[in-house]
Amino acid sequence: MKERIYLAGLIIIGNEILSGRTEDKNIAYIANSLSKSGIRLNEVRVIADIEEEIILAINNFRDRFDYVFTTGGIGPTHDDITTQSIAKAFGVENVLNQDAYKILLDYYGDRKKINESRMRMAYAPEGSELIYNNISKAPGFKKENVFILAGVPKIMRSMFDAILPTLKKGRILNSIEINAKVPEGVIAPELTKIQEKYHEIEIGSYPYYENDSAGTILVLRSINKEALKNGEIEVLNLIKRFT
Amino acid sequence: MKERIYLAGLIIIGNEILSGRTEDKNIAYIANSLSKSGIRLNEVRVIADIEEEIILAINNFRDRFDYVFTTGGIGPTHDDITTQSIAKAFGVENVLNQDAYKILLDYYGDRKKINESRMRMAYAPEGSELIYNNISKAPGFKKENVFILAGVPKIMRSMFDAILPTLKKGRILNSIEINAKVPEGVIAPELTKIQEKYHEIEIGSYPYYENDSAGTILVLRSINKEALKNGEIEVLNLIKRFT
Repeated sequence: MKERIYLAGLIIIGNEILSGRTEDKNIAYIANSLSKSGIRLNEVRVIADIEEEIILAINNFRDRFDYVFTTGGIGPTHDDITTQSIAKAFGVENVLNQDAYKILLDYYGDRKKINESRMRMAYAPEGSELIYNNISKAPGFKKENVFILAGVPKIMRSMFDAILPTLKKGRILNSIEINAKVPEGVIAPELTKIQEKYHEIEIGSYPYYENDSAGTILVLRSINKEALKNGEIEVLNLIKRFT
Repeated sequence: MKERIYLAGLIIIGNEILSGRTEDKNIAYIANSLSKSGIRLNEVRVIADIEEEIILAINNFRDRFDYVFTTGGIGPTHDDITTQSIAKAFGVENVLNQDAYKILLDYYGDRKKINESRMRMAYAPEGSELIYNNISKAPGFKKENVFILAGVPKIMRSMFDAILPTLKKGRILNSIEINAKVPEGVIAPELTKIQEKYHEIEIGSYPYYENDSAGTILVLRSINKEALKNGEIEVLNLIKRFT
């Protein structure tokens, strides 16, 4: 019986990434954490803070993937439109979440300090659950298989680390990295043959340039450790012939 | 008469980004360069080295955007399937490009050193033009509005910098950045009013945390410099009231 593979998609919502003002730090963190956990990240989209774009991406992703993560657009300002857009994608109302409101009330200590803008941070698509935020308190939300996270990396990480243990995971892809100090073109024909021989292994080849000499990082990945070991031996033998 | 706005999409092709092995460096560079040049980056997708995924993304993007850039998957190894997949997306053959072959021949000096794998780097969708690569010689390709670039950041930049001057561009979005040393929730209600008053300006609000105190970077962007100046004055006055 084949084990179930769990698939994820990530939607980065943010004009600041597309305009080049801010360098995204969230893709690498989420990609890395999922990969180590046995969940496969299949696609990432970076889209603008535009309602129709968010609705399209959410509805495409939530059908295709087990888990969908969004980052960005859940703050108090006018350009934070993620939760209301996701509510529309689900065809539900964006409603005041009582648990989220309690958290804001605790934090600000006074109902009057929660102005109309801050109040927006307590709204979520109907039927959402909270995702706690230990840094700035305003929570993220889970609506069915969609996890709505903050965009500020420190806060996003705190939310993501909190939900990761709750997700169902498949077997972890074991990974071996080999630094072949030869240009990839030299070993490419033989490498193709090794790839064709080992269907259970995914062989990635990543060229690099260091002090004007070309090398290649080879990454072998498989859920089958024995196949991986055999593949590694063949790749090491191949490299020996050229160094 | 309204000036034409030029739109771009970026497709990052690479299992290594989705697996978390490699942190993407290309999004920020391309986003920044386009933004400064008067071309608007509308969407970025990171997809796996899978033919159907590449075809879907390419055909979606080339219809929607003036310019489409891809990075990754144009090397000599088995996992480099970008050009052949893009040829399929266009419904044309992936053919030997004589100019690209000449470059490889010059570089390797000997026909025999261009093994079958390296030969793949001289193939491109029928009707492509070359994009020169000063670093490792193997070229990228332009097919209609799709620019096929390398994934290695240094090479990608060299190719991108070479093509950027050849693209048609709209007016540049002028941008002003203001560091409001107050939490965004404090100024959010009034900021919304300023945004509503100035339709020509796009106001972005980006919270940050420094030494446990919360601040907000406000970014005002517009092609209209006068509107931008007026918006800046209002935002500065707003901040003064809370500091």
